Formats: sequence, C-alpha cells, structure tokens
Amino acid sequence: MKKRVVTFGEVMLRLSPTSSKRIVQAHEFDVTYAGAEANVASSCALFGFEAVHVTVLPSDEIGTAAIRELSSNGVTTKHIQRKEGRIGIYFYENAASLRSPKIIYDRFNSVFSEIEPGSVNWDEILQGADWFHWTGITPAVSAGAAAVCLEALKAAEKNNVCVSGDINYRRVLWKYGKAANEIMPELISYCDLIVGAHEDFKNCLHIDEPDFEMACNKVADQFQSIKEIVTTTRETISSSHHFIEGMMWTKTGLLHSKKYELLPIVDRVGSGDAFMAGLIYSKLKSNDNQSALEFATAACALKHTIPGDVNTVSAREVEDLMADKNTGKLLR
Amino acid sequence: MKKRVVTFGEVMLRLSPTSSKRIVQAHEFDVTYAGAEANVASSCALFGFEAVHVTVLPSDEIGTAAIRELSSNGVTTKHIQRKEGRIGIYFYENAASLRSPKIIYDRFNSVFSEIEPGSVNWDEILQGADWFHWTGITPAVSAGAAAVCLEALKAAEKNNVCVSGDINYRRVLWKYGKAANEIMPELISYCDLIVGAHEDFKNCLHIDEPDFEMACNKVADQFQSIKEIVTTTRETISSSHHFIEGMMWTKTGLLHSKKYELLPIVDRVGSGDAFMAGLIYSKLKSNDNQSALEFATAACALKHTIPGDVNTVSAREVEDLMADKNTGKLLR
Amino acid sequence: MKKRVVTFGEVMLRLSPTSSKRIVQAHEFDVTYAGAEANVASSCALFGFEAVHVTVLPSDEIGTAAIRELSSNGVTTKHIQRKEGRIGIYFYENAASLRSPKIIYDRFNSVFSEIEPGSVNWDEILQGADWFHWTGITPAVSAGAAAVCLEALKAAEKNNVCVSGDINYRRVLWKYGKAANEIMPELISYCDLIVGAHEDFKNCLHIDEPDFEMACNKVADQFQSIKEIVTTTRETISSSHHFIEGMMWTKTGLLHSKKYELLPIVDRVGSGDAFMAGLIYSKLKSNDNQSALEFATAACALKHTIPGDVNTVSAREVEDLMADKNTGKLLR
Amino acid sequence: MKKRVVTFGEVMLRLSPTSSKRIVQAHEFDVTYAGAEANVASSCALFGFEAVHVTVLPSDEIGTAAIRELSSNGVTTKHIQRKEGRIGIYFYENAASLRSPKIIYDRFNSVFSEIEPGSVNWDEILQGADWFHWTGITPAVSAGAAAVCLEALKAAEKNNVCVSGDINYRRVLWKYGKAANEIMPELISYCDLIVGAHEDFKNCLHIDEPDFEMACNKVADQFQSIKEIVTTTRETISSSHHFIEGMMWTKTGLLHSKKYELLPIVDRVGSGDAFMAGLIYSKLKSNDNQSALEFATAACALKHTIPGDVNTVSAREVEDLMADKNTGKLLR
Amino acid sequence: MKKRVVTFGEVMLRLSPTSSKRIVQAHEFDVTYAGAEANVASSCALFGFEAVHVTVLPSDEIGTAAIRELSSNGVTTKHIQRKEGRIGIYFYENAASLRSPKIIYDRFNSVFSEIEPGSVNWDEILQGADWFHWTGITPAVSAGAAAVCLEALKAAEKNNVCVSGDINYRRVLWKYGKAANEIMPELISYCDLIVGAHEDFKNCLHIDEPDFEMACNKVADQFQSIKEIVTTTRETISSSHHFIEGMMWTKTGLLHSKKYELLPIVDRVGSGDAFMAGLIYSKLKSNDNQSALEFATAACALKHTIPGDVNTVSAREVEDLMADKNTGKLLR
Amino acid sequence: MKKRVVTFGEVMLRLSPTSSKRIVQAHEFDVTYAGAEANVASSCALFGFEAVHVTVLPSDEIGTAAIRELSSNGVTTKHIQRKEGRIGIYFYENAASLRSPKIIYDRFNSVFSEIEPGSVNWDEILQGADWFHWTGITPAVSAGAAAVCLEALKAAEKNNVCVSGDINYRRVLWKYGKAANEIMPELISYCDLIVGAHEDFKNCLHIDEPDFEMACNKVADQFQSIKEIVTTTRETISSSHHFIEGMMWTKTGLLHSKKYELLPIVDRVGSGDAFMAGLIYSKLKSNDNQSALEFATAACALKHTIPGDVNTVSAREVEDLMADKNTGKLLR
Repeated sequence: MKKRVVTFGEVMLRLSPTSSKRIVQAHEFDVTYAGAEANVASSCALFGFEAVHVTVLPSDEIGTAAIRELSSNGVTTKHIQRKEGRIGIYFYENAASLRSPKIIYDRFNSVFSEIEPGSVNWDEILQGADWFHWTGITPAVSAGAAAVCLEALKAAEKNNVCVSGDINYRRVLWKYGKAANEIMPELISYCDLIVGAHEDFKNCLHIDEPDFEMACNKVADQFQSIKEIVTTTRETISSSHHFIEGMMWTKTGLLHSKKYELLPIVDRVGSGDAFMAGLIYSKLKSNDNQSALEFATAACALKHTIPGDVNTVSAREVEDLMADKNTGKLLR
Repeated sequence: MKKRVVTFGEVMLRLSPTSSKRIVQAHEFDVTYAGAEANVASSCALFGFEAVHVTVLPSDEIGTAAIRELSSNGVTTKHIQRKEGRIGIYFYENAASLRSPKIIYDRFNSVFSEIEPGSVNWDEILQGADWFHWTGITPAVSAGAAAVCLEALKAAEKNNVCVSGDINYRRVLWKYGKAANEIMPELISYCDLIVGAHEDFKNCLHIDEPDFEMACNKVADQFQSIKEIVTTTRETISSSHHFIEGMMWTKTGLLHSKKYELLPIVDRVGSGDAFMAGLIYSKLKSNDNQSALEFATAACALKHTIPGDVNTVSAREVEDLMADKNTGKLLR
Repeated sequence: MKKRVVTFGEVMLRLSPTSSKRIVQAHEFDVTYAGAEANVASSCALFGFEAVHVTVLPSDEIGTAAIRELSSNGVTTKHIQRKEGRIGIYFYENAASLRSPKIIYDRFNSVFSEIEPGSVNWDEILQGADWFHWTGITPAVSAGAAAVCLEALKAAEKNNVCVSGDINYRRVLWKYGKAANEIMPELISYCDLIVGAHEDFKNCLHIDEPDFEMACNKVADQFQSIKEIVTTTRETISSSHHFIEGMMWTKTGLLHSKKYELLPIVDRVGSGDAFMAGLIYSKLKSNDNQSALEFATAACALKHTIPGDVNTVSAREVEDLMADKNTGKLLR
Repeated sequence: MKKRVVTFGEVMLRLSPTSSKRIVQAHEFDVTYAGAEANVASSCALFGFEAVHVTVLPSDEIGTAAIRELSSNGVTTKHIQRKEGRIGIYFYENAASLRSPKIIYDRFNSVFSEIEPGSVNWDEILQGADWFHWTGITPAVSAGAAAVCLEALKAAEKNNVCVSGDINYRRVLWKYGKAANEIMPELISYCDLIVGAHEDFKNCLHIDEPDFEMACNKVADQFQSIKEIVTTTRETISSSHHFIEGMMWTKTGLLHSKKYELLPIVDRVGSGDAFMAGLIYSKLKSNDNQSALEFATAACALKHTIPGDVNTVSAREVEDLMADKNTGKLLR
Repeated sequence: MKKRVVTFGEVMLRLSPTSSKRIVQAHEFDVTYAGAEANVASSCALFGFEAVHVTVLPSDEIGTAAIRELSSNGVTTKHIQRKEGRIGIYFYENAASLRSPKIIYDRFNSVFSEIEPGSVNWDEILQGADWFHWTGITPAVSAGAAAVCLEALKAAEKNNVCVSGDINYRRVLWKYGKAANEIMPELISYCDLIVGAHEDFKNCLHIDEPDFEMACNKVADQFQSIKEIVTTTRETISSSHHFIEGMMWTKTGLLHSKKYELLPIVDRVGSGDAFMAGLIYSKLKSNDNQSALEFATAACALKHTIPGDVNTVSAREVEDLMADKNTGKLLR
Repeated sequence: MKKRVVTFGEVMLRLSPTSSKRIVQAHEFDVTYAGAEANVASSCALFGFEAVHVTVLPSDEIGTAAIRELSSNGVTTKHIQRKEGRIGIYFYENAASLRSPKIIYDRFNSVFSEIEPGSVNWDEILQGADWFHWTGITPAVSAGAAAVCLEALKAAEKNNVCVSGDINYRRVLWKYGKAANEIMPELISYCDLIVGAHEDFKNCLHIDEPDFEMACNKVADQFQSIKEIVTTTRETISSSHHFIEGMMWTKTGLLHSKKYELLPIVDRVGSGDAFMAGLIYSKLKSNDNQSALEFATAACALKHTIPGDVNTVSAREVEDLMADKNTGKLLR
C-alpha cells in the first residue's frame, strides 16, 4: 500500500521570461502552475507516494491547464474544486551572479481566496492518510482559507494523521484584516513538525529569541504537539552560488545535515518545498531524523538544478547524492 | 506639424500560446501589451501621427514592460500614471478552420479600474489635439473610469477636439452597479463619430431598429453631434476565412467599402481598432468619407495578417492594398 | 457515476520538426507521446469520462514522460506495466498544400511488443466498465500483443462490456509470421461496433465487395455481434484542404453525417481516433446513432485544427460545432 | 557516373523573422544561406546529381556557415574562394493573405562582388561537366563578376557543356556603370536555354514584343544557340493563394505544363530556382521537353510548401506530384 | 525637471546565435539594435533621465526596428535622420569557460558613415542639455562622422554642456585615410571627463606612459578641460569568470571602487557603456566622485548578468548592489 | 595535399531537451546526429583534414538528415551505406551543479549493427590514407560490426595506415554473445596508439594493474605495435565544474599535459572524441608527443563549452588556448 500525503493550498500560474531575459525584455514567458503546498504534493508523488492536493481553481481553461500539470506529476486532483474566477499569478525573473531573482505577485482575489468553510469533505479525504501538510501562506490569503485550513487540521487530528506546517511568513499577504500572530498559533498547535526560521517564530508566534535553537525550545514549550522543527540555512555568495545546509531541532538535540555547494543555481524557487517533501518522504519511509534531514537537504540541493517549481527527481537520485555516488559524472 | 490624436483606456497584458497550441497544451506564452484604445494610438503613431495614450499602469516591471511596448510603437507615454496594483490580463487562444479563437479575461481589480476622477489634466493633454478616441470598454470597467472618461469628453469639447467613440458593448464587463444604458448616452452625446452595430445601439442607447441604417437615423436624431456612424460586417466561413466590408452612415447616405477576402487569417484581434485608426488617419488627412472608409477597411483587412493586437502597417501599405497594387506579389 | 472506457494499445514517442520544417531540415523536434488507442482514451477523459489505458512502457524516463502526458489528459495510468526496453517511435513531418504529410515508423522491438499473455488482470480492469476499445494495430505488432488482446475481448464479453474495434489495417506491420486475416476475424467476432473501410474488410476479413454498404452487409452476416459499422470519407483537395464526412451502417440502413470543409488543416494525425472517441462518448450518453455519428464527425473535424495526436476539445465545443454555433467567431 | 552540374553566383545570408512576425516586430531571425544559382545547385544535388557551386565567401565564420549549409545540401564546395570581406545579406519578411512578402537587400560591396577575372580555373571545373547555369544577377553585381561569368561561358563552350541562363532582371542592381542591355546580349549568346519573361527580353535584350511567344521568336532569331525559352506564369489571388503554370518555347511550338493551385503558400522564395533545377534534372535524364516542363513546374509547386530558399524534395516526390499520386494523403 | 543627456553615434543590428550555440552552428539569431553611445543613452533613460540619441538610420524597416528598440528603452529618437542605405551589423558569439566570446563586424559603408557635416542642428539639441557623450568609434568611422562630432563638441562648449568622451580605440576602424592620433586630440580637448586605458592614450593621444596614473597626469597636463579620467580593470579567469574594478583619476588623486566577482557572466557586451551611463547618472545626481565611481562600477557589474547590449537595471538596483543589500537573495 | 583520416562506426540520432529541462519535462528536443568515431572525423575535418567516415545509415529521411549533418562538418560521406532499417538513438539530459547528466540508449537493432562483412571496400578507402581510427563501441555492437572492423584493420596494415583505437568499454553493449576480452585483443594488436584507462585494460585485455603507467607497460609488452597510450583524467567537483588533464604513456616515459579548469561546463559529451581528434591532428602535423598531448587536451577542454557532440573549433582556437592567448577576452 502506498503512503498517502494530503496537501492544501493555492496553485498559481507562474510566468517567467524565456532564456535568461528580464521581465522588461521578455517577449515570451515559460508557463507552469505551482504553489508551495502543491509542490510538496508533486514531489511526494514523484517519490512514489499517493499525493492528494486540495485547492480551488478557475472553471476555465487556465484552471484545466493547472490540473493537467498537477496530474502529470502524478498528483491526485479529484478533490480540487472548480469555480468561476481568476487564478493567482506570479511573475518570476530568474537571475545570475550579482543580480537577484525576483517575484512579482498578482494573487489577490483569486478563486482560492474565495474558498468557503465547509466546502471540503476533510474527513473523507484524510481518512487513512499518513500525512497532512499546510503552509502559512494559506491562512494569510483570506479568512475563508484560514477557516478551511483549521477544518483540515481538526480532521487530521481526528483521523490521526501526522501534520506538518511550514510557517512561511510573507508580510505582503495578510491583507484581510487579521495579523499572522492572531491566526497562526492556533493552527500551529495541531502540528507534529514545523518548518521555520527564528524570525518566523517572532512574526507568527510572538516568540523572539536570538537564535534558532533557543527559539525552538520556546516553541516546543508552548506547542506540545511539536516534535521536530526544521529549517535550512544558506550562505549566499551570489544569485548563482550558494551553500545550503539543513537543521532539525528535536527533543534530544539539534541535528545538522551535510552542507552542499550550489554553483550554478538554475532555479531556486520551490527548493524549500523540495526540502519539505524530502522530509515527509523519508520520515514516512524510516522515521530516522538524521536520515530524514539528510534526504531533505539533498532533495533541496537537487531542486536548484531544475527549472520550474517542482523537484522532478526520484528518491534514487536523492539517495545517490546523499551517498556522493556519481556526483557530476555522466550516467549511461 | 504632425496631427495629434489622444486616446484613453486600459492596457492589458496579452498572453497567447506559442505556435498554434491551445491554452491547455501551452508551455510558453507569447507576451504583448495591448488594449482597444491603445491599439488605435499605436496604429496612428505608426501612420506618422503624434499619438498620446492616457492610462494607469502598475508601478512594477510589468507596467514598465507595457510602456516599453507602447513606446516602441511610437506612442507618447508621458501622461501614463503608475500605481501599485495589478495589470488587467487576457489570455488569447488563436484558432484555425472550424475551431473558434477564444479570449479569457482576467481584468477585474486592475490599477486602471482604480483611476480617480480629477487625476488627469485633460486640458493640458487635449489642448491643440486634433482627435480624441474612447471606447465603451472604459466606462464599463468602473465608476472612476466612467467619470474620467466624461471629464475627457468635456475637455475635448472645450478644446474643440474631434471625438470618436467605439461603443464596443461587452456584457461581461459592467459589474460595478451601473448598466451600459445608464452611462453611455451621456458619453455618446459628445461624439462626432461613433462605431457600432445595431445591437450595440439597443444595448447602450435604447435604440432598437431592425437594420443598421434605420438604427443610425434614430441615433443621429437623438445625438445631434454625431456626423458619421461606422461599422464593419463580416461573412464568416470559418476561423481562417472571412469576408469583410466597412459601412459608414452619413447624413447624406450610407457608404460601402470594397469587400476583402481574408484567407488565411493570422490574428483577428485588434482588427476593429485598426479600422478605427485608419478612419481617424484618413479623416484627418483628407476628410473625404468614402476614402476614409476605404482606407479604414483596407487597414482592417491587413491587420488580420499580423500577429498581436497592433496593426504594424504603414499608410503606404494600406494605400497599396486600396489600389490593389502588388497584392500578393513579392516586393523587393 | 462517470462512465468508464478502457483502451489497450501501444504508446509511442512522436517526434515532429518544429515550425513547418521538413525532417531533413529539422534542428528541433516537438515531442509528444501517443497511440491510436491511447488517443481515444485521452479524448474520452477530456470529454469527462473515466478512461483507463492499458499498455507497456519502458521503465526509464522516456516511459515516465509518456505516462505524464497520458496523466495530463486525465487518463488513468495505474494499469500500465513498466519494463526494461525501448519505446516505439514515430517521426511525423507535417505538410501543406501540394506536399503530403509523412510518417516514418521506428516501432519494432518495443517493450509493448514483448507483452506477455496473462500479464494483465483484465477481469479486474473491465469489471464495471462501460466500453472497451482496441484497434487492428495491436494484434499486428506481435503474437503476444494479439494474445493479450484476445484475453481482453474474452474478459469484456464475460463482463458485458460494449466493444469497439478499429480495423486500421497497416501492411507494414504484421511481421511476426501471421497475416491479418488469420488473426483478425476471431478478434472482430467479439465486437459490437467496428470502424473500417471496405478495403479493410478485404485485407482483414476476406470480404471483398465493391462498396461500403454491400461490404457491411456481408460483415454483419458473418459477425453476428456487430451492430454498427462506421467510417469516414475524405475528399482531398490538398494536404491543407479536405472535406470530411462520417458514415454509419446500421441494421436499419446507412446514416450520413454533415460534411465539413477543413481549410487549413493544422494536424490530421489522430483524427480517426477523435472520431472514435466521439462515437463512444455520444453512444454512452444517449445511444442515438445519428447524433453519435454527428458528434463523432464534428469531433473528428475539430481534431484537424489541433497540433499533436490528441483532440483536446470539450464535449461542449463539439456540440457547438454540430449546431454551427459561433463557428469562426471570436469567443469572449 | 553521376551527371555534373556547375553553377556560379553569389551566396547571401538570409534573415527572416521567426513565426509569422514582421521585421519591425522581430526579436529572432531564422538564418539560412542562399542565392539563386546556389539554390539550383542544391536542388540538383538533392535530386542526386553532382552539383558544383563556384562563388566567393568571407574568410570568417559567416562564410564558413554558408559553406556548411551548401555542404549539407550535398553541393561540392571545394572551388569556393574565401576572402576578407562581407557577405551579401537579405532580409525576408514572409506574409499571408492580403499582405505581401518583402525582401530588403543589403548586398552591395560583398566579397563576391570583388571577384577578380582570372581567379577561377573554369577549364578544370567545367571539363566533363554536363550543364552550366548562371543568372542575370551575377553580371549585375560588378564588372568583375560579369567578366568572370563571361570567362565561364567561354570555357563552357570550349568544353561542350550545355548552358542555361536565367535573365532575372533586377533594376535595383546594375549600379557599377553598365546597363543590363550592354552586358547581357553577349552572355546570352552562349546559352542553349534561357529563362525569361517578355519584360526581361525588353530590359536586357532590346526585344520588345507584346507577348511571350512573339518575343521568343525574336530572341531565337537573334541568338542562334538558344533552343528553348522557359518561364512560369502566376495568377495571384493573395500572398497565400496562387495558381502557377510553366511554359516552354521550342523551335516546334509552345508547350504548357499542368497548372497547380497553391494554398496556402509557405515560402515562395526560390521557387524559380526550383523550376530551373527541375528543368536541368529532367533534361539531363531524358531530354523530353514536355516532361522536363512538367517536372520543373511540379518541383516549383512543391517549393512553395517549404521554408527557406532550397527545394528539399527528392525526384520521387516531384514525380508523385506530376502523377497526382497520393497528393494530400498521409504517407506512412 | 529631468536631466537631459545627449549622445551621438552609430546604431547597429546585433545578431547572436540563440541558446549557447556558435555562429557556425546557428539556425536562429537573437536580434537587437545597439551601439556604444546609444547604449549609454538607453541606460540613462532607464535611470530616469531624458536621453536624446542622434544618429542616422536606414529609411527601411530595419531602421524602423532600430528606432523601436531605442524608443522602448525610453530614448528620444526624434533627432534621428533616416536615409536610404544600410545599417552597420555585428555578429556576436557568446562563450563560456575557456572559449572566448567573439564579435565579427560588418559595419563599413553604413548610412551612419555617410552623415554630412551641417546636417544636425546641434544648437537646438544641446541647448539646455546637461551632458553630451561621444566615443572614439564615431570619428573612426568616416571623415563626415568625425566632422559632425566636432560640430557637436563646439555646440556643447557654446551651450555649457558637460562633455564625456570614451576613447574606445579600435584599430580595425580608422580606414578612411586619417589616423586616430590626427583626429582624436582636437576632439578630446573639448572633454570634461574621458574614459580610457593607458594604451588608448598611446594610440590616440601620443602619450606613452607605463601606468594609468602617470599617463593620466600627462593627459591632464595636455588637455586642460579634463577633470576626471576613468577606466575599469578586469582580472580574467575565463570567459565566465571575471573580477572587475573601476578607477578614477582626479586632480586630487586616484580613486578605486569596490571590486566585484562575476560568475557566471551572461553577456559582457555593453558593460563599458553601462559603466559610463552610471558615471553620468551619478555625477549629475550628486557630483561626488567616489560615489559616482562606485555607482558606475556596480552598474557595470550588473550589466554582465543581462543578455543584449543594454543595461536594463534601475538606479535602485544599482544602489542595492553598492550597499550589498539582498545580493543573491530572492526578492518578492 | 590534405592529410586523410578515415573513421568507422555508428552514427546515432541524439535527442536532448531544449533549455535546461529534464527529459520528463521536455516538450522539445534538440536534434543532432553523432557517434564517437564520426565525432573524430568531424573534428579532423574542421581542423582542415580530409576526413572520411564509413558507416551504415537508414535509407529514409532520418538517414539523410544524419548525412547532412556530417557533410556540414566537412566529412566525406560517399562511402556511407544506406539500408532499410532504424537509426540508433540516444537521449541526452544535460545537467548542472549537483545533478548528473544522463544518457539513455536506444541503439539495439540499428542498421549499423546489421553491417555485413565484405560490404566495405577498405582497400579503396584506405589506400593513401594517413590515419584510421576506430573505437571499442563498434565491435561491441554486433558480430558483423566486429568483423568489418577487423577487415578495416587488416587493410590499414596492408596500406601502411597509422591506426588508433579508443577502447571505450561499455558494459551495456556486448550483447551478441561475445565478451569484450574475446574480441578486443586481436583488434588492439593492429594499433599504433590506443586510448584507455586502466579499468579498460582489465575489462578488455585481461591486464589488471593498480595504476595507469604500470598497466601501460604490460599492454605495450603484449601488443608490440602500440607506441603510445593516452588517457584523460578528471577531477569532478560537480556536473558544472571539472579539472581535466591529459596523460600519454610513451616508450620513454609518461607525459602530462597542462591541467584545465572547466566552469561552467556547457556539454561534455564528445570531449573524449575531441581529445582523440586533437591527437591525430597534431601527430600528423608535427609528430611531437608533448605538443600532441597539449593540443589534444586543449581541444578536449574547449569541447566542454560547445553544445552538441562535435568540437566545432579551429586549430587556431586550440593553439590560442594552449598559449593562453586571449583566454576569456572578447575577440573583435
């Protein structure tokens, strides 16, 4: 029986200039459809799990195209609602060397933000599932989305589904009248594992500590269900050259992964989602925290070599990188 | 001294699948920026006039890209406002033979729709201008846009600028609480020339007559300033094959243009705007109604051969087609 | 409950020069994955049915890419076998006007041809299904494929699934030591509906009559299960210009569909599959033979406007063409 | 032993907007290298003859790229001179329907125009050759090119090589101080077969007759070596739609070919060269004038379906069109 | 009131293979229009200044396309002359790692080189301008261009416009009978600021000193108007990997900028022009030499990340790099 | 007189995703035709030698396209056989940073593998030739290919042609019933120079020594004709970053080349063939082993910067890199 992972969140149309052009120079855009939570679902499906993504998409051809893309990654799309309205959009300008990559959002008033409490049958969807993943982007989008997210978390608890939440604080969202720290603590209280840096804890959880480990201790004090807290740290030489490392706080201490050098970086968008998917996959496979962290970080590192949001690698490719097997060699 | 034409209306991001793909198959979109009124400005500029377009665009790189495109067509962009917000978008799927082309709009809540009365210095812009052109899309977008359109019309009257309005009735717009026939009659009352089919007159002007000429007579009775009413009629064999003809009602009778066969059609979007620009150009050059109608129709016919919204032809190319000079021949 | 259609056959990699280049000029190929039966499945899925395709694909990334494409069309791929080996390939050169389009096959020794009798659990797959579709390409590929096809037909009979077979005689296949007319009659004897022209009946069924209707009468005499026989006829002006019409023999007489003019033709490959899918869809919806024939022919006509093998149209688009609603008009 | 055809003339860089864009809209150009005489050589090589092209090309990478293209068509390039300097360039804007295709030349001061008399060892090149072909473009380019052309013609006569000349009068060339009718008569006097319309005879040979046949009679009176005079006539509905027919004057009367409808036209450039190559091929194969004319016209018709200057068809494809075998059918 | 910068020089058609192909492999060229001085104008316009470029372009569509590109960058093009003739062209082959990028010029006999003294109304153009920029390429092209450049410099002096000159010595130009050191000293004598390395001073100004500072002292002795001399120095690891630094000689000593590592380099063409535009912008904003040098070097560094000749960055992006704010981070 | 190099081996169709996409994401493939031995021929031709490649290709358009590509590189193709059948294919996925590039072969049952002993007239082809090159891929493909390879080697010996063999051991080939070490020793015994690493010697020659030099000594003991043994060694930081160095065993000691840093790597496929071609070129030019090794290694290094299999560099470019002349500089 395949493990089943359920994710919930907005799927957007991503538009990026072809070649290495800037937006102002672009006469063609590469077109993909992606979102933080859907990226996790796609990566889990590509690792071989059943991955169910729940969202709302427009009833027009753009919505259909988004579903086609999720389906091609192997994601189960049958619980996706279709409604008249618009898809959220983001423009992504890739970069190189000393110029920074840039995202311009055009996501307000999307059909996803209009999702209605009660419209998702979470019990049916989560029954028998192994993992539920959400991010802090969803409750930031609208009161409706926040409410549906809470419904999902309650159903997950009821169905004994392991829960991860990526805090993913974005100041530019949260425009519907609530602040992150009014909404997030309740949602976080349902999680077994969270992703966050210590600034996220400050912005969303009122926890203001000078370093990651100290902040994690406080978070764990306050949120009893949380067993692990993970994050990645980057050393940024330029847009094309990073070093990346994963960290995991556990009740028995702080774990560090191997550190990877990334040069050049092809596309870093979705690398956090790749990390999360790696973590879910490895935890559900073996539940060894150190291996899960290594797997997640290697998956994250590989994502930087792939255009688009989705980490189209197999578990085998991640394991080979972890074992430094054939890295940089021509495979035949 | 170059003639000066002023236009006012929304500029959108146009996204179309490359090659002859459908939206659901598309992995790349061709990117242009266009709008009915801006298309008229671009075409007038390409014919050699000074063309000033007034609009509101986002302050981000997408807004900049839109301005770059208008500038490349020679349009004067210095009166364009920039504001935080989103650009209106439309997705265009081209077609062939028995499959119809399709437009999906995503234009609500654009920065243009948030334009504020009083924010445009119309007197400065219209002083010394020769022509002002607007369309029924603008007052359909928001109360603000309707109000600014009325301000423009009053300033045009004050500055003795000739005015054309393209009724361009679109049922799917007009969502802000007013019906077309509550707003349009006042705006139309400032026009010297209008573009419209007899259904437009019914929807916007309460004038319901069985044919174009009879409807025009009624329109002219009611709106004393109107001197000419123009329209194009199409015989549609398939998406790739049309016949097109222009008609002009004048106080002295109905004029017909030559009829053109279009096969194959490359891109029909903007062909009405090409017609309008041709009319403005020819009226300002010679003010002979029959030649203006012929020029406008030939310009409209040529637009069908050009990808994108804008009719990138010179006046010379239009005149050659009118005279059937070298049609279909290889020019060296 | 969605109707369920099951199809069985080879999926190939299709490579076509980009733009309108010839193969000898090509420096880039457009890449899709398709096959006659899979095309039917894709089209049925796009019409809204559950469509299950059974095949064998390589275990490498090329096989994965083929599955991604089927999934994106909404086809259920969970019964697809993966094995070490090669995918069948075909090169397609599109054409125009007086130059003919061309297919070069490189499909021998594919993993599909190595399919083993007994390897498909047809009872599980066909239980509760509404329709099973196969074509004469499958038994032509290998003895194994012919045997598995026969297993499917027996299971379909056992499970009361309606069966269609497209004779699709291809002389260049049938290389494994059996002639079409040694194998096909048994397979045909399980069908409710077949697709074929009268030359097909001669080549595969030893039935040699001078016209379609006479041949059909003989076929029906010999194969008692057959209730309808369908075909399309083309009038070929050039590669870009055809007229097409559907015909259906029934026990109560010969039906003709509306005739469609196709100009220009974008890509005719898969138009027969589009016809078949239309027939299945309409028969399962209403079981009216004349409407089914009209729907199938309109679907077939629309396919000619779409690049690739798959008819990415909705049922609504087909119905609009049947009703001549908006044909050639710009839809907004 | 393969027949050997020798051609002499300028090879240019051809730049055309990709897709169906206009030059003013183009951000990418398709790149090929071509010239009237080289096109004939390429087509003859593709029909299976040895084809030797003589020209001068720059010693830089652009010259190398031109040679690569000729080589890929199978043309023998070893007699091509390389010199410091520039390649002639032409910009080609394709068209559709009522818009005309357009060529902009930038060919003055090319290395070819600087060719020096005596620099080509014509005796070595033409010894044993079967056919020599030149066009009126070459003597129009420079005094040097005219002189080398005359050297070639004298060597051809000495070596009993059959000679064809395509008059191809272009007013915009002939800038070096000589008029066409000062130079062409001597060159024409060496020809066995010429291509020309009656206006060409007027411009280049002082022969002014009202129709083709009458003009041909006069030409043949004056130039005793000429045995056949050929031309094509076009009926031009639009840029996308022509009818084309070949004509050949012989001492025993005027021959007409079958007439072909071309719809749509993909690229008409080089269709005259395709006609000429077809004529040479067929004359050298069988020397039957009617078949040669039919073959040439069918080859010319096929060229209209192929992007670029070169007619990449095989003799078999031409023969199939002549026999109307499979026209417009899908070949497998 | 916007600052106004005026530039004068040739605009060329730039053709580069798409992807990372070599010229000999290229079947498509990316198309842009650029020139050293026009690049400075474009960059100044993109920084928010009024930038007027003066040049001569062909009257055909290629000339129009060049103007469209300048206009899209916001450059004022109304003083550009149009004449029958050819545009200068350059082919650019990008490179990577150990292979060097390469430029092939085809710029002789361009319409720009035929510019006539007296044909530009410099007084009108320079009146009220803040800065005039020229480079040593212009006087190298033709006697006419050198004469018009001198006219511009005299008009600049008369109108109290600050003048910069980029010596930009190119041995392969200067073919019209004058040597650089016969022409350049007079032109340099009008400058307030020059760009040059010490080899330039030797080639153009007869000043041969072993290092930059010593050479600058001599230059300043001889040319009293010169207040600053600037240059950039590169450490070249490979085509993809440079370190770059700016230097400025002033009467009070030598200034050095921060040094930037560039890895990978996307396109280095126009980086000197980006440096110059940065210098002009910053000098006109604040006239602090150290900040101007830092701004110019940061602008130059960013240009290496952008395809094409033009530095499409905003002043804000340059300032962020100077302040090392967000370098290499994803901006949302 | 040009030196003549003869090569023998399979030519395959190479398909790679465009941009930096993965195979599973690809909707377009770049198309080239290549093979280890043909790559050596192409590179030798591009260095200015006569290069004759012997192979078998399909008689269809795919075979023609392969010949076109070889011809464009200047390779003599007249000894290539054409037969009904399929071309071998390989799919190449490029990579970056921590992700490895990958090749998927689909080469079994190609027309080349069906080559028949006696079908090549080696005496005619090798008479007067200077060098014959083969690789261990050829005898691995089929018994027929191995037999024809042996025929070639015997003819080379008879005609005193210098012979090189690249052992190039590939475990996945050798499927026809023979092991490498049953076939290779005899073939190697005809060689003057071989390419191989010490694992190759173990797999193919039963020679198992712990390092390259010791293994070479044994090889030379056993195979008296061998005068030099060469190899390259790579230090692999990532897919984008290697260091590469050449080594040559000679009877008088081990030679090392300069070591090159490669960052980034554009395409490493064919770099071994580039090395071999460099060696042949330099040996035939001057026969100095150290220079030959340096030339070969520099050629190999440059190949990493060029998309496709073929090293499209001139001898001059290789010499410039050897001399570190202009490395990384912009050449004008």
